[in-house]
Amino acid sequence: MPEWVVGVDVGGTKITAGVIDASAQVLSRSTVRSHAGRPPHEVVDAIVEATGAALGDAGLARSDVAGVGVGFAGHVNGAAGTVLTSSNLPAWDHHPLRDALQERLSTPVILENDANCAAWAEYRFGAGKGSRCLCYVTISTGFGSGIVIDGQLYAGATGTAGEIGHTVVDPDGPLCTCGKRGCVMSYASGLAISRMACERLAAGEATSLRDLCGDSPEHVSGEVVAQAAQQGDSLALEILTVTGRYFGIGLSTIIQVLNPDRIVVGGGLARMGSLLMAPALQALNGNIHPVLRDSAEIVPSALGDDAGMLGAAALVWETTAGQA
Amino acid sequence: MPEWVVGVDVGGTKITAGVIDASAQVLSRSTVRSHAGRPPHEVVDAIVEATGAALGDAGLARSDVAGVGVGFAGHVNGAAGTVLTSSNLPAWDHHPLRDALQERLSTPVILENDANCAAWAEYRFGAGKGSRCLCYVTISTGFGSGIVIDGQLYAGATGTAGEIGHTVVDPDGPLCTCGKRGCVMSYASGLAISRMACERLAAGEATSLRDLCGDSPEHVSGEVVAQAAQQGDSLALEILTVTGRYFGIGLSTIIQVLNPDRIVVGGGLARMGSLLMAPALQALNGNIHPVLRDSAEIVPSALGDDAGMLGAAALVWETTAGQA
Repeated sequence: MPEWVVGVDVGGTKITAGVIDASAQVLSRSTVRSHAGRPPHEVVDAIVEATGAALGDAGLARSDVAGVGVGFAGHVNGAAGTVLTSSNLPAWDHHPLRDALQERLSTPVILENDANCAAWAEYRFGAGKGSRCLCYVTISTGFGSGIVIDGQLYAGATGTAGEIGHTVVDPDGPLCTCGKRGCVMSYASGLAISRMACERLAAGEATSLRDLCGDSPEHVSGEVVAQAAQQGDSLALEILTVTGRYFGIGLSTIIQVLNPDRIVVGGGLARMGSLLMAPALQALNGNIHPVLRDSAEIVPSALGDDAGMLGAAALVWETTAGQA
Repeated sequence: MPEWVVGVDVGGTKITAGVIDASAQVLSRSTVRSHAGRPPHEVVDAIVEATGAALGDAGLARSDVAGVGVGFAGHVNGAAGTVLTSSNLPAWDHHPLRDALQERLSTPVILENDANCAAWAEYRFGAGKGSRCLCYVTISTGFGSGIVIDGQLYAGATGTAGEIGHTVVDPDGPLCTCGKRGCVMSYASGLAISRMACERLAAGEATSLRDLCGDSPEHVSGEVVAQAAQQGDSLALEILTVTGRYFGIGLSTIIQVLNPDRIVVGGGLARMGSLLMAPALQALNGNIHPVLRDSAEIVPSALGDDAGMLGAAALVWETTAGQA
């Protein structure tokens, strides 16, 4: 029985692969500039490349690992091994990514949604340990979640449970990337921060963001807005307050529907700390009954950016053990 | 081992008790005019009265039944046997209703949220049979739900999972009974229909509702609005379209978060049929990705008003069997 597996996180901006053991130790890792929004054949190539590089760095061959686990940013039916949708590219609709990768890698592959993988990693190794009903939420480019109930990953009937980002909080609100209006992630996500900042810059408002983003005001990132907010820029603070408020409303939806005992908060925007979490917790507390609020402990991610990769790897171990 | 149990549904307007066997046959039933919003001692008295009347009609004594199951309209921690909150009456906060009833009835009592009971009944005996991930939604005076996952009632960490009615869909919207603004049930519930109808009547709008509600325009019920809509009243139709739209948005939230394979729709307002469901399904389809929408079958309740009572009874059988 090999001692290692490969975990791969196919995110919104990059693909990271790591060689990982059963106790979540990372032997090597490699990152490729590609993402879940590329066409399927390009993503397969990039996963193969990242996997090969991570194995090379570890001095291992494909035959030295028990399998490859892939966490994918999109609607994934893990049981069927398919991507249901990704980034509005029709080529992804019901794409059999697991089988395509198994053929290319000649090794067992498991496929799961990236937030589900991260939830599983936090439950097994991180800030979710011991929880009976865990919800891991990630706020970065988007806003998603994964659910672990009674020690089992809960993915729903077709794998898409936990799509909190596209719950509607304002039916007449701004257009979301999904084509609907007023999804919570149309306010609470890196994309939303960029949109709000660009709109306010285009309207000519006074803000240090104009200097910080240089020649490309159409590409104001969440990081740049956080930086401006930390320096006291009032527009940046206002935008993060809106994002935090809707993030808190999203958390209230999770608590209303799932009544978790713990919520683990991860994702790049979570690193903003109180700039995001202070308005989020204020909105949460104002949008939920105290007895429901009190039932859920809210804690930061322990595994950070590694969570998706570690969870994908752990799912390989557990699937392999289940078949042994 | 007794052949019967008593199931009790403590709703928003009345309390119904039935003598029921393990295959959900109802031997007798009795209804008392009281409800979950009364103070605890009155509700205990009313449950004891309804239980006694149902037993009397069946020619049975308390010692002839295996126990009493109570479905209660409020936040209930079934495992702890307590009501967490009900109708903003402080006397209910963490009230040990199960033990209070056990003492009065001298028989084992189980306590659970009413929508959870109805979900369990639909799963065991009704329109939810065979579902892997079932969500039962009820739209009547309020808007709630119950969840059954892999053959287990899913109540969450403290029993309050499925509180879909208080998810926020409009943070600056109308005041809800819970004190928050823009809960989905502030548009999608009997209470909301009454509020909207009263507001429009007070504004002097032309509508047949004025005649239908007689001298008490402050008490326009959902039934009266449905009646007016069936007769073509344009204001009534407009109100039901708003209610249906937000009901559909609530269904989209359930699908986004839980990805159920089936949603069973019950509650008094569901009897309006297409007056409610046509705008609801239109809003649902417009507020969710087609691949997520397609994963959930939406069907009407098979058990109607009996669902809560039957589910409470079934939980007694299963709890008793589990302890045997």
